[in-house]
This record gives sequence, structure tokens and C-alpha cells, in this order.
Amino acid sequence: MKNISQRISLVPASPIRKLVPFAVEAKKQGVTVYHLNIGDPDIKTPDVFIKSLQNWKRNPISYGQSQGDPEFLEGLKNYYHKLGYPFIQIAHIQVTSGGSEAIGLTFFAVCEPGDEVLTFEPLYTNYNSYATIQGISLVPVLTKPDTGFHLPKKIEIEEKINKRTKAILICNPNNPTGTVYTRDEIEMLVKIAQKHGLFLIADEVYRDFVYDGNKHVSLLDYIEKMPNQIIVLDSMSKRYSLCGARLGMLISLNADLMAGILRIAQSRLSAGLIDQAMASHLMEVPSSFFKEVHKEYQNRRDILFEGLSKIPRVTLEKPEGAFYCIVGLPVLNAEDFCKWLLTDYRLHNETVMLAPASGFYSSLGKGKNEVRIAYVLKISSLKKAITILKNGLIKYLHTKNTRLQTRK
Amino acid sequence: MKNISQRISLVPASPIRKLVPFAVEAKKQGVTVYHLNIGDPDIKTPDVFIKSLQNWKRNPISYGQSQGDPEFLEGLKNYYHKLGYPFIQIAHIQVTSGGSEAIGLTFFAVCEPGDEVLTFEPLYTNYNSYATIQGISLVPVLTKPDTGFHLPKKIEIEEKINKRTKAILICNPNNPTGTVYTRDEIEMLVKIAQKHGLFLIADEVYRDFVYDGNKHVSLLDYIEKMPNQIIVLDSMSKRYSLCGARLGMLISLNADLMAGILRIAQSRLSAGLIDQAMASHLMEVPSSFFKEVHKEYQNRRDILFEGLSKIPRVTLEKPEGAFYCIVGLPVLNAEDFCKWLLTDYRLHNETVMLAPASGFYSSLGKGKNEVRIAYVLKISSLKKAITILKNGLIKYLHTKNTRLQTRK
Repeated sequence: MKNISQRISLVPASPIRKLVPFAVEAKKQGVTVYHLNIGDPDIKTPDVFIKSLQNWKRNPISYGQSQGDPEFLEGLKNYYHKLGYPFIQIAHIQVTSGGSEAIGLTFFAVCEPGDEVLTFEPLYTNYNSYATIQGISLVPVLTKPDTGFHLPKKIEIEEKINKRTKAILICNPNNPTGTVYTRDEIEMLVKIAQKHGLFLIADEVYRDFVYDGNKHVSLLDYIEKMPNQIIVLDSMSKRYSLCGARLGMLISLNADLMAGILRIAQSRLSAGLIDQAMASHLMEVPSSFFKEVHKEYQNRRDILFEGLSKIPRVTLEKPEGAFYCIVGLPVLNAEDFCKWLLTDYRLHNETVMLAPASGFYSSLGKGKNEVRIAYVLKISSLKKAITILKNGLIKYLHTKNTRLQTRK
Repeated sequence: MKNISQRISLVPASPIRKLVPFAVEAKKQGVTVYHLNIGDPDIKTPDVFIKSLQNWKRNPISYGQSQGDPEFLEGLKNYYHKLGYPFIQIAHIQVTSGGSEAIGLTFFAVCEPGDEVLTFEPLYTNYNSYATIQGISLVPVLTKPDTGFHLPKKIEIEEKINKRTKAILICNPNNPTGTVYTRDEIEMLVKIAQKHGLFLIADEVYRDFVYDGNKHVSLLDYIEKMPNQIIVLDSMSKRYSLCGARLGMLISLNADLMAGILRIAQSRLSAGLIDQAMASHLMEVPSSFFKEVHKEYQNRRDILFEGLSKIPRVTLEKPEGAFYCIVGLPVLNAEDFCKWLLTDYRLHNETVMLAPASGFYSSLGKGKNEVRIAYVLKISSLKKAITILKNGLIKYLHTKNTRLQTRK
């Protein structure tokens, strides 16, 4: 009997989701679990989307077009025009089943098996998964807490480039670090990509989540100058609290690339019709929605940073954007701690779920004492989660020490 | 500047969709286009699904679980129990973004790059696309009109099996031929798979569409006997007129395979939440819906077969199931004819769109004078489409002959 493929065994389990069975078990026991493990916002989806479902008339629910539904594509075009990029046309947009599909399509479109994509770690864990699925190598350049996970010097980046390097990939604002790259950093990458003839890919899913009055620097600022090299990945999920509507976008001015991507898109027929019909109302979302959401996240960021900073031997940088941060813990094995919180620890019958950070590194052995925290819960829940984490950590360290001493 | 990948250029354009721009152009000119090119039924989606959208309450629209939403999984389990397979548990089901994702996941899970999957042509075109994307070879065994596209002898199948063969894939009822395999044929495949230790994969998306009182023979009948080898692919699209809700299913009792597939599923986070919440009502669809749909399709099949059989030099076998058939035409290049119908031919300002059949073969050069027809339109439209096809064909042959004579 033939075995399943070797390559499927290489696909890593998601650090965000692999502990889910333990959370499910805890909930079965009546325990409240605060989910800081996943960027699944509790912010309400704008009314205009919900109402478009409630007013649903279309029947049958038939296939959409492979590039995307015309009304949704028109809405997206208007969104990018309003954002300041009036040159973006419908031909430059491919609608994807979530930002995830946009990652997979991009890797496939720019790399042969064995090719390399240079990126910065800690990194969004699913870049790893898609690289494995597509048979390509992610080559990570390490970024560090003491520089707020900002980019290293040009020479440190360039020394990782070789003949097999096809692209540089950034996530900006960054998941999992919360770093927002400066214009100088973006221009450094633009110059490197120009010099070495590389594709330059930006995942800008968190474009709207930049705090303290700073501005996001989009690769769309440079896409007319490098029309064949720049690819921007985007998503409806975070901006509009639409994670469960699987809608992402891939933006490129490279006609050959878009034609190839459309052929792959045809093989999966279309993205969801209902999701797209709903999301085609994106330009009707009032600007007050984004203002409130922005304010809410900045508050959450402040409360998380303040709360965690007070816990002895816990280290973190103040995130500049997105809604994540990498947190160093005084433990040897953060995954064991995350699992223990779900299986063994309760405070007033509540616990917290975190994502172990080792899965956010491409280099083996990195991030073992770190977790990624998503501050996607309302402030009252976030405060409780911080208290649980603090008390849980003390208890865990005590338990582990006792165990160690007992063994002696 | 680096080029896009070679492998993306190998992905074939969909024969079902590549002529779409010409159809769009015709519609812009006010021409009615009857779509016989794609299996996108005009049957109304059952009320219970539409109502669940109209009663939508959930907010925010958050991520679903990677395996599938619990309520939808429960509904699917009940569906398979009612179908006669009470041993199927939720652990045996993976929800996919359309049947398409199930095909891609399966190929990835059972094959290394360069491995072979044996299948029968004409074949569902997207098997070709996914094989190319996954770097595997589809090895086709030819089936022929004079045997109603039924399977060839065991020896003809076995002689295509070698060390790299990992699986046999069938589509039953078949898209694009409309063939429904007999129990003898299915048991022959079961024996071959047992003898050679191969995975045996059945795409049973059209399970409900079997005519003339015949019964569908599902691989689920054999899955307990070969729990590690059989994989069944399924979809909500055709059965419930839900093509635009991207929901498919993969059924396997192989725990290692399901664990690997779940890890890939985690990397794309989840299938659509709204689609799944809607589809979780599947057991509430009244049996009268299926009865009426079945009757309607059998009528359409009869009318199509009768109508096309009367056109001189047009050849087809009476389809036994699904809602497709392969039709031989007296032309040298069916793709040119299909394109010409969209660009140059109108009957009372109407025309018809067909899918050239060459893309439904894996072997180069096959199917050049054939089209695939999907009989998914109501009978009045179908009759008009047949008349257009008949008159269009006469005109096309006349035009071509005139051109040829002019050239002489």
C-alpha cells in the first residue's frame, strides 16, 4: 500500500491553531478561554455588509467570475483610487479566497521549486506553510526586539541574495511583530530589488492599523516605477472585520503575471459569490467606522503594553501597528506554557490562549521562549487576559521549579 | 529583472472559461448568450439556504474552524448517514473551498512531484490544472464514444501502472462524458487498487444525477474495506445549486492523510463562514426538491439528446448521468467554431456558448472536433440553444467552405 506523500508531512502545523483542540476541551469543561492566539477581531462587521445579507435576493447562488465579481472589482478599484492610487485599474486586481490564496498564488507565479524568497523573521507563519506547499525556500533575515524588529542594514540583507533568490517579501505593518517600516526602510528594499532585479512583495493587510499618528508607507507608492516587480497582497478580513468572508486581493501591474494568475484562478472557478456581493458595498462603510476601530486598537495596544511591561521578566517592544506583538517570557518552552494554560490553569474558571512564537520563525530553534499575542479583544476582556497570563506565569514557574526540585 | 515562473506558463487556460471575454463582448452588443459551456445550473437554490442569509444574525463575520464549521460538519455527517454510510464520523470529513480545493489537497497529499495519477479521458479539465500546479503527471486511459465512454478492459488500465503511479482517479457520474460506471467497473478498479496498493479517488459531485432508474455506485460502499486507500471528493455546488458558495468535502478514513490535510487547511485558515452557516441547513432541504431537480435534468437530457441527434454529422452518446455530454462535430477545430459562435454568429440576436473539448483531454491533439455541452438551462432555453447550434453549424460550414474555395 502506497503511503501519503512525504511533502505533506513537511507542512508545519499552524502555531496559531494547533493548540485549538485543548481550547475546545477547556470550553467543554465550562471554562472561558480568551483568544489572544489569533487575529480574529471582535469588532463588529459594518452594518452595510450584514444588511446586504439580510436583503439577499440573488437566486440561484451561481459561480462568480474567476478574476472576481464585477461589482466587487469596481468597489476595490474605487477603494485604491481613494487611497491615492488613481492609476489602478480592474485589470490590476485579482480577487482571492482570503489573503492566504494571494500568498500561494504569488509564490507559484514568481518561483520555480527550489527558488528562494527572502523575508524577515519573525514572520507570518503561513508564509512558511505556502513556501513548503510550493516547494520553495523562505530565506529569513533575523530582526530583533532591541531595534523594534526594524530592518537590518542593507549589507545584511544583500548577503542573503543569490542566483536562486526571486523575491523579497515583507509584511507591513508586520504580523507578528507590530513593526511599521519607515519610508527609508521601504526605499532601501526598493533599491535592493531594483539592483538585483527581484520581485518585491508587500503584504499590506494591516495597512489601516498604524498608531501614534504615523503614516503607512505602501509599496503602491512605487508600483508605477517598478510595474513588473512589485506585488501587493491585501485582504478584506482585518480592515472590515470580515475574516470569515474569505476575500483577499492581489495587485500587480505586470500583465504576464496577472494572466498566469488568472489561469490558476480559473482552475478553482471563483471566490465566494455571497462574500463578494456583500463586500462590494465596501465604499459605503462610513469613515467613522475606521476612526473608532483605530482608536479602539490604539487603546488596546496601550493597555496590553502597559499590562505586560509590569510583569517581571516579561519583555516586549511597543507595537507600532497591526494588532500583534512578540512577547518574551521567562520560560524554556513557550509552547509547553501555552498548552499548560489551556489544560492545567484556570483563574476564576477562565484561561487564555496564546500562540507559541517558534512557528513564526523560519530558522529552527528561534522563538522558543516567545509567544505572539493578538490584542483583538475588547478592553475588559484584554485586562482579564493579562491578569490570567500574569498569574498563570507565576504558577507555571512555581510548578516547573517544584517539579525540577522533586526530580533532584 | 527576474521573469515570472516557467511553471505558471504550463497551467492551461480553462476550456470552460477561456472564451468568456468573447461572451462578455457579445452581451455588451445586446446579444443573448445561452451558456452551455459551464455546469452552473439555473435551478433555484433551495429556500432554506436563501432564508438563512436573510435571517443572518452573526456579527462579527469571524474565521471558521479549519476543518469546517461544527454545525456544517454535523449536517454533512447526517447527510452521509442518511445516504447509507453510518460509520462516517466528523473526523473523516474535511470541508474545502469548493470541490476544486479538495482535488488540489488530494493530489498534494498522495503524490510527490513527478508521481503519476491514472485517470480516464476525456476528463474534468481542472484535474489537468491541479496536476500541473502540484507538479504531478495525469496518465490518461482513453475512453471512447462507441462504448459510451465506459472503462476499457482491466489489462489496458494495468499496463499504464508503474512505480510512480500513486492513485487512480475517477469522476462518477462523469464530467464531461455523462457516463455512470457500473458496479462491475467500480469493483474492477477496487481490485486493481488493492493489487497494486494504490489510492483510489472518486469525485462524486454528481452522485444525485443518475437517470433512467439506474443507481449510483459510490466508492463509499468500499471505504471500510480499504480505509487507507479510498478518498471521496464531494461538493455542495451541483446537488443544492450552490456553485457560488465555495463548499466541497473530502472524505477519508485514513487518519494520517486527514491530519496532513488539516495542516494544509490551517494555512488557509478556513472556508467561508457565511457559506458554511447557510449550508449547515442541508438536511432541511425537502426531498421534493431533489425529485423535481432530477426529473427536470432527465427531461433536459432527453431533449438535448433528441435535438442534437437530428443534426446531420453530429455525434453523441446518450448521457447516463451528471449534466454534460461530449458531442462530436463535423468541424476541424471545435475551438474556432465555439469562438465564431460568440463573435460572428447570431440567430434573432442570440447565440450559444460551448466548451471546446480538447481541454478535457490530457493527451495532446485529442478532442479537437468535439465540444462539451452542459445541459443546465431550462427547457425553453435549451431548445433555442439547440436551434442556434444547428443553424450556426450549417452557416459555419458554409462560410468555411466558401473561404476555402475563395483561397483556391
